[in-house]
Amino acid sequence: MLEMVSEHACYGGVQRFYRHESREIGLPMRFSVFIPPQAAQGRVPALFYLAGLTCTEETFMVKAGAQRMAAELGLMLIAPDTSPRGAGVDGETNHWDFGLGAGFYLDATQPEWSRHYRMYSYIHELRELVSQELPADARRIGIFGHSMGGHGALTMALKRPDVFRSVSAFAPIAAPSLCPWGIKAFTGYLGEDKTAWAAYDASLLMVQAHTPFPNGILIDQGLGDKFLQEQLYPEAFEAACQTAAQPLTLRRHQRYDHGYYFISTFIEDHLRFHARNLTA
Amino acid sequence: MLEMVSEHACYGGVQRFYRHESREIGLPMRFSVFIPPQAAQGRVPALFYLAGLTCTEETFMVKAGAQRMAAELGLMLIAPDTSPRGAGVDGETNHWDFGLGAGFYLDATQPEWSRHYRMYSYIHELRELVSQELPADARRIGIFGHSMGGHGALTMALKRPDVFRSVSAFAPIAAPSLCPWGIKAFTGYLGEDKTAWAAYDASLLMVQAHTPFPNGILIDQGLGDKFLQEQLYPEAFEAACQTAAQPLTLRRHQRYDHGYYFISTFIEDHLRFHARNLTA
Repeated sequence: MLEMVSEHACYGGVQRFYRHESREIGLPMRFSVFIPPQAAQGRVPALFYLAGLTCTEETFMVKAGAQRMAAELGLMLIAPDTSPRGAGVDGETNHWDFGLGAGFYLDATQPEWSRHYRMYSYIHELRELVSQELPADARRIGIFGHSMGGHGALTMALKRPDVFRSVSAFAPIAAPSLCPWGIKAFTGYLGEDKTAWAAYDASLLMVQAHTPFPNGILIDQGLGDKFLQEQLYPEAFEAACQTAAQPLTLRRHQRYDHGYYFISTFIEDHLRFHARNLTA
Repeated sequence: MLEMVSEHACYGGVQRFYRHESREIGLPMRFSVFIPPQAAQGRVPALFYLAGLTCTEETFMVKAGAQRMAAELGLMLIAPDTSPRGAGVDGETNHWDFGLGAGFYLDATQPEWSRHYRMYSYIHELRELVSQELPADARRIGIFGHSMGGHGALTMALKRPDVFRSVSAFAPIAAPSLCPWGIKAFTGYLGEDKTAWAAYDASLLMVQAHTPFPNGILIDQGLGDKFLQEQLYPEAFEAACQTAAQPLTLRRHQRYDHGYYFISTFIEDHLRFHARNLTA
């Protein structure tokens, strides 16, 4: 079922890249996984990382420096790709922020996209797969992500807090209905009717929730991030959390930008946050 | 003199990419530098990292996860590119292991290469530059590297132990005169006369030395490295160190391969090793 593409010893554990035929996507998909040394003794908590626009299943594993702390804490890390590959939709490669590499972690409903662009359902397929085929503990799954993947992590967790028991984000697109990236993606994948958009907008999902994550949510945001003003809207999510009585730690960092030098600086805090939540 | 290409906050310090006109290369060159937070209080020890075949000045800074420990220890990290860019030598791009991205940290003497392929002298130019233009302490400079860059680090340190006061390597090409990569590069850059090769062969340099690094040399080598048998020859360097009464810690690691998942696993040990040597 899973075809191993490559394997690398790393921090006493193992970094692997897999390919598999996805039921939900209807195409082969790739993902990466870091299996910590503790998995030799039994199932371990698992943390999904959803990457941002233009990234692949490799980006996080290469750039974030997460394996060191995951090995120490005994966390499995799983990073899916950011869209189907090979769907062949007309115009799929014309935009860096829509189509290929920009699946937005939703199930498209527009005719040309709805057959393969089903990243929301795919992440759940993958979640089931890693507890069937790999030593992930299905009862201890967390999720985090960056930018488009921060949007993905927040929305997926808010829709299923029963399965994603811990959530955090780096510079998430926190109110996609309000920003150019989100409006473009939602219009293209979901159509013009904004009522369909609300199901994938973290700030709109949060205002209807009631303390879905009692242990809190962690978000880091750089104040030197060139996308902050136009695209990210952390303040909308912050306000929604207040409405929903959801504890939120939103840390704003002077000088830090939108890239992986920012993420790597704070990755340890996120892994410790998830490890606390998933072993509580 | 230095043109800053980009700057990113990272671990309380700053990750920068620079471009400059190189006197030795005769072309514009790029390099990257991580400046730790301690540099705000004065000059800091600096550690050069020489990368392997096909890499650029970005590879190490993105993949090795070194900034965390460099920020903690107060080490500046400097990563040059691996060859001139734009020399326009005929056939320069025909081979991944010779020419572009494969400068081998030597000064070429063969006519077609000798004008621009002067990476040995370039590293010294850069060494002077970072203590003139950046807050590196010229009296506390170390050097390390990977594969072709491990060869570079060992040979540069052995030729000038007075300026490179600490040296280590990951999976170095430790006896280039004996292996296909080295023979191809030395023949191409230096010609057929093997007496010229000895000046750039770490194992041959070492047998003529006398305990050049009394605090020892650190080398990590993966035993799952597919290049180990044919290209690397750590045992030749080990024997040379015995002849030269040079303390060597050569750690052989089951399962680890030739890539950055291996390097990142042991990067902390190397940074601590250099910090000890450079602050002693």
